[in-house]
Amino acid sequence: MTISTKLDQFHEIREKISAYRLALTTLNWDSSTIAPKKGASYRNKMAALLSGELFSITTSPEFIDLIDELSAEDLDEVMTREIRLIKKNLDKTRYIPKDVFVEYAQLTRDAENVWEKARDQQDYASFKPYLKKLIEMTKQIISFRKDTRPVYQQLIDDFETGITLADYDVFFSKLKEEIVPFLHRIIAKNIPEPAWLSRHVPIGQQRKVVDILMDYLNYEKESGYIGESAHPFSSHFSIHDNRVTVRYHEDMFTSSIFALIHEVGHATYNGQVDEVYQGSTIADSMTYGMHESQSRLYENMLGRSAQFWTSVYPKVQQCVDALSDVTLDEFILGINHVALSLIRIEADELTYPLHIMVRYEIEQGLFDGTLDVEGLDEVWNQKYMEYLGIRPPHNGLGILQDIHWSGGAFGYFPTYALGSAYSAQWMAAMKKEIDVDRCLENNDFASVNAWLKNNIHRHGGLFDPNELLLKVTGETFNPQYYVDYLKEKYSQLFGLYE
Amino acid sequence: MTISTKLDQFHEIREKISAYRLALTTLNWDSSTIAPKKGASYRNKMAALLSGELFSITTSPEFIDLIDELSAEDLDEVMTREIRLIKKNLDKTRYIPKDVFVEYAQLTRDAENVWEKARDQQDYASFKPYLKKLIEMTKQIISFRKDTRPVYQQLIDDFETGITLADYDVFFSKLKEEIVPFLHRIIAKNIPEPAWLSRHVPIGQQRKVVDILMDYLNYEKESGYIGESAHPFSSHFSIHDNRVTVRYHEDMFTSSIFALIHEVGHATYNGQVDEVYQGSTIADSMTYGMHESQSRLYENMLGRSAQFWTSVYPKVQQCVDALSDVTLDEFILGINHVALSLIRIEADELTYPLHIMVRYEIEQGLFDGTLDVEGLDEVWNQKYMEYLGIRPPHNGLGILQDIHWSGGAFGYFPTYALGSAYSAQWMAAMKKEIDVDRCLENNDFASVNAWLKNNIHRHGGLFDPNELLLKVTGETFNPQYYVDYLKEKYSQLFGLYE
Repeated sequence: MTISTKLDQFHEIREKISAYRLALTTLNWDSSTIAPKKGASYRNKMAALLSGELFSITTSPEFIDLIDELSAEDLDEVMTREIRLIKKNLDKTRYIPKDVFVEYAQLTRDAENVWEKARDQQDYASFKPYLKKLIEMTKQIISFRKDTRPVYQQLIDDFETGITLADYDVFFSKLKEEIVPFLHRIIAKNIPEPAWLSRHVPIGQQRKVVDILMDYLNYEKESGYIGESAHPFSSHFSIHDNRVTVRYHEDMFTSSIFALIHEVGHATYNGQVDEVYQGSTIADSMTYGMHESQSRLYENMLGRSAQFWTSVYPKVQQCVDALSDVTLDEFILGINHVALSLIRIEADELTYPLHIMVRYEIEQGLFDGTLDVEGLDEVWNQKYMEYLGIRPPHNGLGILQDIHWSGGAFGYFPTYALGSAYSAQWMAAMKKEIDVDRCLENNDFASVNAWLKNNIHRHGGLFDPNELLLKVTGETFNPQYYVDYLKEKYSQLFGLYE
Repeated sequence: MTISTKLDQFHEIREKISAYRLALTTLNWDSSTIAPKKGASYRNKMAALLSGELFSITTSPEFIDLIDELSAEDLDEVMTREIRLIKKNLDKTRYIPKDVFVEYAQLTRDAENVWEKARDQQDYASFKPYLKKLIEMTKQIISFRKDTRPVYQQLIDDFETGITLADYDVFFSKLKEEIVPFLHRIIAKNIPEPAWLSRHVPIGQQRKVVDILMDYLNYEKESGYIGESAHPFSSHFSIHDNRVTVRYHEDMFTSSIFALIHEVGHATYNGQVDEVYQGSTIADSMTYGMHESQSRLYENMLGRSAQFWTSVYPKVQQCVDALSDVTLDEFILGINHVALSLIRIEADELTYPLHIMVRYEIEQGLFDGTLDVEGLDEVWNQKYMEYLGIRPPHNGLGILQDIHWSGGAFGYFPTYALGSAYSAQWMAAMKKEIDVDRCLENNDFASVNAWLKNNIHRHGGLFDPNELLLKVTGETFNPQYYVDYLKEKYSQLFGLYE
């Protein structure tokens, strides 16, 4: 076969894969938004069947041989990357015996059910044996790879290509040294939570805010959609179709607003990928950390800044009765209020990475053997006390709060904090080139999006995070930007200059 | 292979087919309701690819052989029916050479584009050669079947199994003899259209009416959903998931209401099929006429009756400002107003079947050679003058108004009228067993649904229309019920007793 025949064959299979992916994305969106409850069991069964069909294609000897052959060919930059991304995934699973894979899939399904019940009953003991088995099987699954790095390093790399345990160790030590004491200084000021934050805001008023923000962020109806779901998420259908969902909390309306801005950050990333990558693996294989860096840039660096709200706050105030007596300055202080919190997904920008640090240290311990599932809930509680200054009253608000581990997703958590840290580095680079504050004040979000598109978004998954960071910011990942950003921002807000 | 092995193999393939169907249904629902415009081209391409995958499965030699083998086996009643339904479809397409099939598919795509433009420009001449080619190719496609019946008879049978040209001839002659003169007597009374029908009703008020009707019709959110789309439709996902869409016309609000009731009729039919048929061909292979008989029973026989509105009208009146001075009697007269109309989809209950009659006679003529595409627009106009007493001012309001022929759907139109006629026959049978009027007056729609489920819905596509009519009403299709129903209803409404 000539290279060109091989490439034709590759494109044909890849297009078929894209069709299955779009179908599964659509089924998933439908399930999570409007699909009627009673149809769930049939729908899930059919979706599983279709996933199986897709799995058969991506693991067919025909496709695997083709990828192996193309890996050995001299291809252009884009195609080399495309094949490498596919091969990386393939190499992770191809050597796993089928019975092991099936057993693992069954284990994660069972574990998720057990976890959900355990969380509701605050009963770590019932989840413990599953967590133990999950760690064992994860090690087993990883052992089939032709990769000799430590298990946790490989897991880390699955979620964030090119990032090492050493990178994370440096990152989290910095947080521990600089942010933990900084947080405690802020907490010591005992600033009460503004009362207006929990005022009742009817959904109708919140919808108007959503319209204002869509307009402001240049998130267009022709290529997006805002649905509703129990938990907000963004969903990538194609470069010209990136949707988000929102959940309206009538007594916590700023939470709905920032979840929306966060999800639109994800959607904008996918929507600004260069059109030449439509249907390719490159178009949607950005790492978890990279994706999170864009959503958190939107939500926090931009969305919680005073400049962001300068032009738009008066419009929002007009729609929301509860804000009628809240000045812009009060609003900014309120949306950046810092509090000791037990629950990761409800944490503020400053405490959030410390929640992640707890999980990172525990995961690391579980895989290097220094920690065991036995007594792990108590380890969790002690770390919360040490870093966040608060002790969970029960395991439902402690070790059982997140779904991730029950699905076998070890190594995922740290990308959440990493994403925030990347975004500080992007922000510093962007500020060197455009006057971000002035753009925001002038209602010119388009210029911000244009910078992001030109420097980050258009490349999709063409580069590993460190490659792109180096290209755009002149250095690989440097956590100092994030630490400096957090300290400067919160010092200013709460008068903590040293 | 033993029968049981063959059946296992069959169930496995059928389940896979169901998964593709559900995916395509979901993609189609998504496209027609919320999907952003700019993603359409990629989405359509992927959906076409997935259809191709499904086509490959249903036309694979493995599946065809299996169906042929199972057709020769002695199976139980349900499985015999299941295999027969699949074989019927297979036999229609299996002998068509691939190049002819591809050419035909291309022709219908082209013809639809040409038709749309022709309609907008009121230009029959540009559509004429496509119509000619469509008829020729339809004849060609049909010629490959091992079936010697006249082409139009075969087309009729494709849409309505077991119904013959003779049945339709009798049916339409009755309409011509009895309904055409009856209509002209009503028209001669010159009853003006009530002004309130075109009053402005804001969407918010219409949504409240929709909620009231959902509740009244026992259409549940747990197994249904009401979306919005340019044209109302119903969509069958599974027995427990049947959705409808509505389009809100602010200056024609009763049109939105009756479109909703119509679609909920379709959804209820699919939703009351016996659960044992979940995932089978029987579950959703009711004929076009049968499906229409349920939607029109809902919309017209029930939905436009005075009894239907007795309990529910006061609630509706409370939500709709425009109805505040409209009495129940005035409302019933208004929703049954009869007018000469040019457009099929806007026609009232009485004139509707005459629109169909025009199309039936023309289709028949085109396939038996007594009519030609040349001058067909004038034939259309003359028939409208003769039966409906009105002449289209141009072809956009005449022969070019419907999309069906451009897609090659000859033989489809008559099922619309047939459905109404079936529903009169069902209604007569139902009234012998339960006091329908009293049920409606007592807000007890559940009893009506229960009768429909028990006698019609639960069977899905287990029986041909005439088999089920015989079983439930004691006779095969008898158009007299429909003619009697129309004459009695409109005589009562407009004081036309003879």
